[in-house]
Amino acid sequence: MIIDCHGHYTTAPKALADYRARQIARLAEPGAPALSPDVRISDDEIRASLEPHQIATQRQRGVDLTVLSPMASAMAHHVGNAETSRHWAQASNDLIHRVTQLYPQQFAGVCQLPQSPRSGMATCVAELERCVAGLGFVGCNINPDPSDGYWSDPPMTDRYWYPLYEKMVELDVPGMVHVSCSCNPNFHHTGAHYLNGDTAAFMQFVLSDLFKDFPGLRLVIPHGGGAVPYHWGRYRGLAQQLGRPPMGELLRNVFFDTCVYHQPGVNLLLQVIPADNILFASEIFGAVKGIDPETGFHFDDTRRYVDAAPTVSEADRHKLFELNVRRVYPRLDALLKQQGR
Amino acid sequence: MIIDCHGHYTTAPKALADYRARQIARLAEPGAPALSPDVRISDDEIRASLEPHQIATQRQRGVDLTVLSPMASAMAHHVGNAETSRHWAQASNDLIHRVTQLYPQQFAGVCQLPQSPRSGMATCVAELERCVAGLGFVGCNINPDPSDGYWSDPPMTDRYWYPLYEKMVELDVPGMVHVSCSCNPNFHHTGAHYLNGDTAAFMQFVLSDLFKDFPGLRLVIPHGGGAVPYHWGRYRGLAQQLGRPPMGELLRNVFFDTCVYHQPGVNLLLQVIPADNILFASEIFGAVKGIDPETGFHFDDTRRYVDAAPTVSEADRHKLFELNVRRVYPRLDALLKQQGR
Repeated sequence: MIIDCHGHYTTAPKALADYRARQIARLAEPGAPALSPDVRISDDEIRASLEPHQIATQRQRGVDLTVLSPMASAMAHHVGNAETSRHWAQASNDLIHRVTQLYPQQFAGVCQLPQSPRSGMATCVAELERCVAGLGFVGCNINPDPSDGYWSDPPMTDRYWYPLYEKMVELDVPGMVHVSCSCNPNFHHTGAHYLNGDTAAFMQFVLSDLFKDFPGLRLVIPHGGGAVPYHWGRYRGLAQQLGRPPMGELLRNVFFDTCVYHQPGVNLLLQVIPADNILFASEIFGAVKGIDPETGFHFDDTRRYVDAAPTVSEADRHKLFELNVRRVYPRLDALLKQQGR
Repeated sequence: MIIDCHGHYTTAPKALADYRARQIARLAEPGAPALSPDVRISDDEIRASLEPHQIATQRQRGVDLTVLSPMASAMAHHVGNAETSRHWAQASNDLIHRVTQLYPQQFAGVCQLPQSPRSGMATCVAELERCVAGLGFVGCNINPDPSDGYWSDPPMTDRYWYPLYEKMVELDVPGMVHVSCSCNPNFHHTGAHYLNGDTAAFMQFVLSDLFKDFPGLRLVIPHGGGAVPYHWGRYRGLAQQLGRPPMGELLRNVFFDTCVYHQPGVNLLLQVIPADNILFASEIFGAVKGIDPETGFHFDDTRRYVDAAPTVSEADRHKLFELNVRRVYPRLDALLKQQGR
């Protein structure tokens, strides 16, 4: 089967964004209590938001299941405070849960965390537990920059983050390192901030002993690893020069997805990074929605690139499309086994 | 001939760094006047700093000339104020000038600008004029983030920067977009901040009409363009989706160097980006100084990768190694012609 490990619910019914708008408006009212989630969406609205979009695209492209999470750019962790983020994550994750209940064959859930700048990990740990243990989610997205463009929180390798990692290891779920929007006019979100977040996080991992402290922690770097595979020689050389372990050691815990939107980029990724560390993904519907005039197909139809990559054996393609995702997301594997898949 | 368009004087005699240390120490003395450059270095010290290092490496690798600028990570524009940066740029550039006088066959100068957060462009314009018109420099380095890791100044496409671009066009010199050190613990300088600066700047150019306002402005994005060529499909797709001109239009003004430290990365760069837009460079001695155990050669010996790249014709290689650099740096071309080269 073919599993896409990176999709966002970018077509969620408007009532979700309406709640968010009301929640933010309430923040500006002096003395008003925070607005708890009050999203009302019917099952039919959910179906209408998915069937002609993500589900139709899955069928067209031959993708069997998508690991779905709330819209990344809408996480906007800089807004309000920890309570704001807690309510917004609950509303967003509850909707993902309903999707996975309506379409258990097509979608598995990954949750948004209620991060907030300098607010610690307690609410994140609680929401992760609620989503994974309570709602059957298989992983989480981790925003390495809750300030959304100003990078004012500690690096992901700081002990500040450790309570989250402890819970992830306990629950045996991976995290995808995924920034949100950018408030910084220097960084376009999908054209710069996303890729820069991936690159920054990877280099943090190169420099730290995080995975000595958490040998069971698994982190997925999306968007093909940002700039990393293209500069693989730089990273190998920097690790060597700085007395850090060789890349092979890091690759016990770090994985890259295939969200690279042209053939030469995917070819490079598959040539440079070991097949065991690459997870198939397309991020439908994400940064780039159009058709590539050079190919006549959608930019984000990454299955075509993986199928056409010259250096990949069929056995490796099977790893990329299915086996690696099941290994990195063991709770997804368990769900699929329950379904006899 | 082979021209390396991106080298830094990372082996400068210690007296330069000593001045900088004294300059910074003076900043902490209440009421003390700023310390003007008082660097004393003999010609022999300069020779000893270059001959066994950059010049020996040029000979080994068959590079005829390097476009040399002050050490990028030492620019540290966040330190002090505009006067601090003015003194430091003068000291650094004067030393580069002496190198180009001692070794006119081996080095041409590119200047550091005295940028300082939110200080405007007046001192930069003056120093650029001094270096180019007065000292024979052929270009400048532009730091897109003078805050050194917090990105608090306006994007490079903001009118804030226009006085600098006006002077660059008037003098007919290009700029290399090159960040400096990182004060932000999230960003390792050569492992994240450098590449992220390249990527952020490119996306700023995609979104703006900067080159409509300055059709003659030429900007070089180093380190192989950060993440950009690896994600070329993403950029083509984003430009299309956002109603921006196709990449070909941007490539009238934007160029990439070849500082990518492994063969697959250089292959991708040369496959994806038109040959007219790639300038040979190695950044000796820059981020990665060691020997790649996989090849037995230095990571930054980029000439080997360009020589071995399978998709490049001899004519294109000639462009990359020489013709493009002479076209993008017309004052270098004029210097070389004076030398009969």
